[in-house]
Amino acid sequence: MDRAPLDVEVLLFDVFGTVVDWRGSVVEEIEALARRTGMRIDARRFADAWRSGYAPAMEKVRRGELPWMNIDALHRMILDQLLFEFGIQGLDEQAIVHVNRVWHRLRAWPDVVEGLIRLRSRFVVATLSNGNMALLTNLSKNGGLPWDAILSAELFRHYKPDPEVYLGGARLLSVAPERAMLVAAHPSDLAAAKGCGLRTAFVSRPMEFGPTSRGHVVAREEFDVMANDFLGLAAALGT
Amino acid sequence: MDRAPLDVEVLLFDVFGTVVDWRGSVVEEIEALARRTGMRIDARRFADAWRSGYAPAMEKVRRGELPWMNIDALHRMILDQLLFEFGIQGLDEQAIVHVNRVWHRLRAWPDVVEGLIRLRSRFVVATLSNGNMALLTNLSKNGGLPWDAILSAELFRHYKPDPEVYLGGARLLSVAPERAMLVAAHPSDLAAAKGCGLRTAFVSRPMEFGPTSRGHVVAREEFDVMANDFLGLAAALGT
Repeated sequence: MDRAPLDVEVLLFDVFGTVVDWRGSVVEEIEALARRTGMRIDARRFADAWRSGYAPAMEKVRRGELPWMNIDALHRMILDQLLFEFGIQGLDEQAIVHVNRVWHRLRAWPDVVEGLIRLRSRFVVATLSNGNMALLTNLSKNGGLPWDAILSAELFRHYKPDPEVYLGGARLLSVAPERAMLVAAHPSDLAAAKGCGLRTAFVSRPMEFGPTSRGHVVAREEFDVMANDFLGLAAALGT
Repeated sequence: MDRAPLDVEVLLFDVFGTVVDWRGSVVEEIEALARRTGMRIDARRFADAWRSGYAPAMEKVRRGELPWMNIDALHRMILDQLLFEFGIQGLDEQAIVHVNRVWHRLRAWPDVVEGLIRLRSRFVVATLSNGNMALLTNLSKNGGLPWDAILSAELFRHYKPDPEVYLGGARLLSVAPERAMLVAAHPSDLAAAKGCGLRTAFVSRPMEFGPTSRGHVVAREEFDVMANDFLGLAAALGT
């Protein structure tokens, strides 16, 4: 599937949506919370509202309107607002901390572990996510994700799509940008990586925003590799 | 073996000497280089000279007499000097780069993989080494070391025993210092971690400096846990 012989050594992976089904995982835990507490919560709407608060919060950090805050802190800021808006009362601090940590427990898509095992036989495989290091480490440990390294935007105190993140990921693994490939389900993330000289692989995740959403539409020539899942990516990269 | 109930969540591991047999690995590769090129090189003396240049070079960075340089760069600086001193000539740039990367290929002590598998069933296990991220990632991939995360002094632009490294490691994994334990074969490293509030585990590696060296002598009460290898550590920590 790839258009040219690629001399890639390192694969860097976006995580939310690309590796893990954040929506399904959050919906499930919020539904369980509702059952446990007897509260009525629209878990789908809650999950979508939580996620949709995320990009604007990161933008405020990127523009300097908020000081550096990692994703755990941004998720908590949004969560506090949502608990108020959804009228969810009576959770103590420990319970709120537990809800916020749902992002440390997100489930991987079913093809991920097998795909990574194949890919890591030839490439160094690492995360490159806006999620913070503890979140990525816990999520990977829970899901048995066999990364060679965990890298996060937190290490650079910049969020994607700032170039510092893509270039920083390649630098920490001691490869030139063109020897690194970003794997992501989001064209905007890939376009920014491409602008920094990285190679790009689009993996479609049409279910990211739920069964009624439509996936991203991308043109074949936009990125170096296109695949339907990590097994397709492994095949496209010859592993 | 531990003196008090410990509420540790994260184990941070020193790497050179504690996890890998740097001396044996470097001696073997330098001996192979000598055979391949027909040169006479005292591989043991070469390995010891390379390693003994390392602490003074890091000290210069710590004192600001050198700009920030990662360990690959410091190893190369020392190697260039050693090639001259040992009269080793005729290696092209590619061959010198390869020799310098021996530190990415160091072999783990034989108890390490089994010990880590046991320890990671209960704890988050991560490196916390002065080695740079690419070095630690490659070394771990080569040796099949099942870390949950790779952390390096490089992330903090400070070398151990600077407190920024120990505190930074705990911070990136979102635990208070007393919930993190440094595992190391070197009392000075452990003493600095203890000074930052971390828990400490001494693992003796009497062969680190070769069969004729003596190991470090430490008193039982200096550190929280003492073990003869990673299997002993796993047993002491109840895994």
